[in-house]
Amino acid sequence: MFRQRLGEAAGQIQTQFKHVLAGFDDLPVVQGMGYATEGGKRLRGFLVLESARLHGVDTKRAIWPATAIEALHAYSLVHDDLPCMDDDDIRRGRATVHVKWDDATAVLVGDALQTLAFELVSNPECGTGDVRADLALSLARASGAQGMVMGQALDIAAETAVSALTIEQITALQDGKTGALIEWSACAGARLAQDDPQFLSLYAKALGLAFQIADDILDVEGDATKAGKRLQKDSEAGKATFVSLLGLERAKSRARELVDQACDALSPYGAEAATLQDTARFVISRDR
Amino acid sequence: MFRQRLGEAAGQIQTQFKHVLAGFDDLPVVQGMGYATEGGKRLRGFLVLESARLHGVDTKRAIWPATAIEALHAYSLVHDDLPCMDDDDIRRGRATVHVKWDDATAVLVGDALQTLAFELVSNPECGTGDVRADLALSLARASGAQGMVMGQALDIAAETAVSALTIEQITALQDGKTGALIEWSACAGARLAQDDPQFLSLYAKALGLAFQIADDILDVEGDATKAGKRLQKDSEAGKATFVSLLGLERAKSRARELVDQACDALSPYGAEAATLQDTARFVISRDR
Repeated sequence: MFRQRLGEAAGQIQTQFKHVLAGFDDLPVVQGMGYATEGGKRLRGFLVLESARLHGVDTKRAIWPATAIEALHAYSLVHDDLPCMDDDDIRRGRATVHVKWDDATAVLVGDALQTLAFELVSNPECGTGDVRADLALSLARASGAQGMVMGQALDIAAETAVSALTIEQITALQDGKTGALIEWSACAGARLAQDDPQFLSLYAKALGLAFQIADDILDVEGDATKAGKRLQKDSEAGKATFVSLLGLERAKSRARELVDQACDALSPYGAEAATLQDTARFVISRDR
Repeated sequence: MFRQRLGEAAGQIQTQFKHVLAGFDDLPVVQGMGYATEGGKRLRGFLVLESARLHGVDTKRAIWPATAIEALHAYSLVHDDLPCMDDDDIRRGRATVHVKWDDATAVLVGDALQTLAFELVSNPECGTGDVRADLALSLARASGAQGMVMGQALDIAAETAVSALTIEQITALQDGKTGALIEWSACAGARLAQDDPQFLSLYAKALGLAFQIADDILDVEGDATKAGKRLQKDSEAGKATFVSLLGLERAKSRARELVDQACDALSPYGAEAATLQDTARFVISRDR
């Protein structure tokens, strides 16, 4: 069920991107936006659609924030891959945007994808003014200088730091860099329904951390061809990760604990939450 | 009256930036955001505050979109100044963000300033959900791949184009690059009051074009010390501008015509619009 729904969500989000971008003038920057938003797991968008389903919100409304969070995630990857940032040539198994076009286009593609995310959550088809303003405000808080960008900034600072980060510092860094957007995604369904996102928030906090620990394990154990991106980056750079700090086995058991926590957090929803619980189990078993 | 109000607006916007950023963790990226939002004419934020006054909207509400548009404008400057873009070392008379910090920090500062703009327009103190969602949606449309970023992309394409741009192409480019944000700013007051922005829109379209023609004139005739940025860039780069296409005298008379059009567009507001009319006259007489 989980695999099937994830595949369906990916297809719906891809269709929505094509629909939205078809309305834009055909410039290199718009082609780059289309390119950067193709492929990927669509995990964040899927969390939006599944949490919306749990709160009885129609996919016709939820597809807007689902596509928005994928646009926002894609912007962060395009900028993160720039030569002055992480300097990556391969993403999702293909040349990164600055390799396929150039650095200037990649800056603008990322910029315009961020803008697109806010355009999508404030689309009238998404809900009432209150709902759209709440989605926009919470998305800004999750992705800005107190959320995702803070995580990226801490990551850059860590590269030049004299001593390696502690487990608390790594957790704070990842909480911003990955956790904030995952939490926003999982809470979006409750926000669309103007319900309290408290259980989804607990679920997402555990899920986000498990996701990042799994990413660190993948960086060490993974297959770059399957992952579609460069691996062993962190260990080559001598960067502290959950694996370097905890060791491989303890990192794996910590990830399993977190997945159990995530699943338990959803127990108030009963059997309806099975797909989101399967999502948590998937997150630590994926190969990309 | 105009000069005094512009000065007041600049002070109010600066205070609001300080207030907002004081709530953020003190990282280099947040210091860069503060630095990048200091100084400048504050013309866009002033247009928000003045159009709000015209529609009877309290400054306590209007300060949010006024600060937002200055954050958005600052983001575009930080990214535009990057070595892979326009490669400028000086802005508002000081070192640009990537010179004072580094390229990676400048990318993140620009990214976070864009996010901040959407956080500010969706702040509950700005108005009802409908008002905030309308401000966010219109700001996204004005600044994204169909607005400001499109103008920047056309500008990049022009640099490698075989033949110089025509007057129609330059007008389309500038309409995106500068015009869209100026129009959003001038219409914000009507949006805050949920009134029709039609007269403000006509005013802003003429104002935006006059502003850009004045910028091209300044690029040729201006004093770099007063302007606080590098001048003669366009002529050195052999880029087509309103001045290169129309000649200096015809460019000046066209700018004056546009200012008259802008002032006429506000006649339905009567004497209340005098400050915005003075703003249009200022735009073609400024030295920076």
